[in-house]
Amino acid sequence: MYKTIITPSIGDTDALRHINSNALPIWFETARNPIFKIFNPTLELTYKKWNLNMVHCDFNYLKQIYFGYDVEIRTHVTKIGKTSVTLTHEAWQNGKLRANGTCTMLYYDFIKECSVVIPDDIRKKLYEHYITKEELENRNRKEMKKNKEENRDYVESD
Amino acid sequence: MYKTIITPSIGDTDALRHINSNALPIWFETARNPIFKIFNPTLELTYKKWNLNMVHCDFNYLKQIYFGYDVEIRTHVTKIGKTSVTLTHEAWQNGKLRANGTCTMLYYDFIKECSVVIPDDIRKKLYEHYITKEELENRNRKEMKKNKEENRDYVESD
Amino acid sequence: MYKTIITPSIGDTDALRHINSNALPIWFETARNPIFKIFNPTLELTYKKWNLNMVHCDFNYLKQIYFGYDVEIRTHVTKIGKTSVTLTHEAWQNGKLRANGTCTMLYYDFIKECSVVIPDDIRKKLYEHYITKEELENRNRKEMKKNKEENRDYVESD
Amino acid sequence: MYKTIITPSIGDTDALRHINSNALPIWFETARNPIFKIFNPTLELTYKKWNLNMVHCDFNYLKQIYFGYDVEIRTHVTKIGKTSVTLTHEAWQNGKLRANGTCTMLYYDFIKECSVVIPDDIRKKLYEHYITKEELENRNRKEMKKNKEENRDYVESD
Repeated sequence: MYKTIITPSIGDTDALRHINSNALPIWFETARNPIFKIFNPTLELTYKKWNLNMVHCDFNYLKQIYFGYDVEIRTHVTKIGKTSVTLTHEAWQNGKLRANGTCTMLYYDFIKECSVVIPDDIRKKLYEHYITKEELENRNRKEMKKNKEENRDYVESD
Repeated sequence: MYKTIITPSIGDTDALRHINSNALPIWFETARNPIFKIFNPTLELTYKKWNLNMVHCDFNYLKQIYFGYDVEIRTHVTKIGKTSVTLTHEAWQNGKLRANGTCTMLYYDFIKECSVVIPDDIRKKLYEHYITKEELENRNRKEMKKNKEENRDYVESD
Repeated sequence: MYKTIITPSIGDTDALRHINSNALPIWFETARNPIFKIFNPTLELTYKKWNLNMVHCDFNYLKQIYFGYDVEIRTHVTKIGKTSVTLTHEAWQNGKLRANGTCTMLYYDFIKECSVVIPDDIRKKLYEHYITKEELENRNRKEMKKNKEENRDYVESD
Repeated sequence: MYKTIITPSIGDTDALRHINSNALPIWFETARNPIFKIFNPTLELTYKKWNLNMVHCDFNYLKQIYFGYDVEIRTHVTKIGKTSVTLTHEAWQNGKLRANGTCTMLYYDFIKECSVVIPDDIRKKLYEHYITKEELENRNRKEMKKNKEENRDYVESD
């Protein structure tokens, strides 16, 4: 699991006084940087070197996220296919899971315009961050229960 | 179906010389304005008046979108539940469907913090924009075939 | 003068229930597209073809801009130097000038990394959109006065 | 001086393979959070509590900023007026100052819609971050010279 800390800006809020839904895709993209490095250590963004092609992403908005508190984005690898990888991102704030979503990327040759089999050394590094959906859900339930007991899930804003 | 024309800006591109994936959530949100008006004709963004709470959205990236050509966002209603509505957005550029995705919103009371049954007058207006997924896919296939025959699906950028 | 119509999205607002200041740089960039075309008709965004390098921009926030009403961005050429051009952008909503700002770009060779003298044919096209700051201010004052008399400067939101 | 570390995301780049100019306003806004806290310790974004109204900002683009390296935003107070404060933000990457800009905000009553005299306790806290433009320029020149000598100003990307 990778952790990325995001400090929301005023521009991330909207007139409903919470974080706008469109902040999440941006935050999750930032949180993918360490995954990108596994595939492309120099992070060189050229057709020659870049090798990931996002084909799908989704977002579940579970609870409001507020301005004024840091957000922890947790990034897990939840599926490793022959030519693709699926990540699960989570946004935690004040002890609660508030949004999550997945992102599927093809290992891709941008010159030949086709997907490629993920090599074993990359696959191995991805497995270090692998967790099943069920295990993740169990773990999150326990953590939120504990946070509640220890009053670490702060009272919400108005 | 609602059509919204978006003119991409340079900031919508990324270093891979196409439109960045995160432009889509923003464009689709803009394209929801006429749907928002069905629910809230004054568009007043207060807890008293606003009544839609997005709980899920997803995005499929089918083909690259490029800077320099307008993008047509088509918005359809593809599911009307008791307390929720699901939209399907499509991004068309130069005669090809290049990205699509859905968005599910609860009809919501932000003061009482609970979902509410969608009233009949709103339900009726939503049905004017309703289409099944299958019908939509058939229609899109035909349209793209026709565009190809008439050379309206331009050659891609480098 | 070029006119670009922007439909604000919810994500453009912030928790103070108006358009966030950072929407303006994005809208003004979109409004520069026709200027970019004067310099680079194909809009090809490569180091070989692109020839404008922004070195400065500024923004004056005069009145609040609100969600729910279209915004008209007006783009004028207000200075044509030997190797640079300065634009003035204005954001009008409901009959009032609500924000403005300038943007200075060098005519630039991205391969040799140096600014270049603007050729006469481009200079000529730029002059078609040229207006002095004084003339622009006079014209705007008159227009806003007329709009007020004709009640075209709508009552503000709460 | 406040320091805020920003990790650029792919969406911050544009097709010219550097950070897009519009990332800066967003990063500088994030970097204003500690200044906002001086004025409004709870950061409550309501008309009752919020008390800063941005009236002007500007940006100078000095050198390219690249994806793949963290950016340090430094925020200084460079002018304290009767009812306004001016900040200077700087974006440093790999030992070089790459962009800077100012931002002027009125101390503001959003209910009465008028600017207010900045109270002494806030004024005092602002002075802790005060530096003159000249002093700042001198200090930056020295720092960049030292970084160059110690090879801390990395070679640029292609």
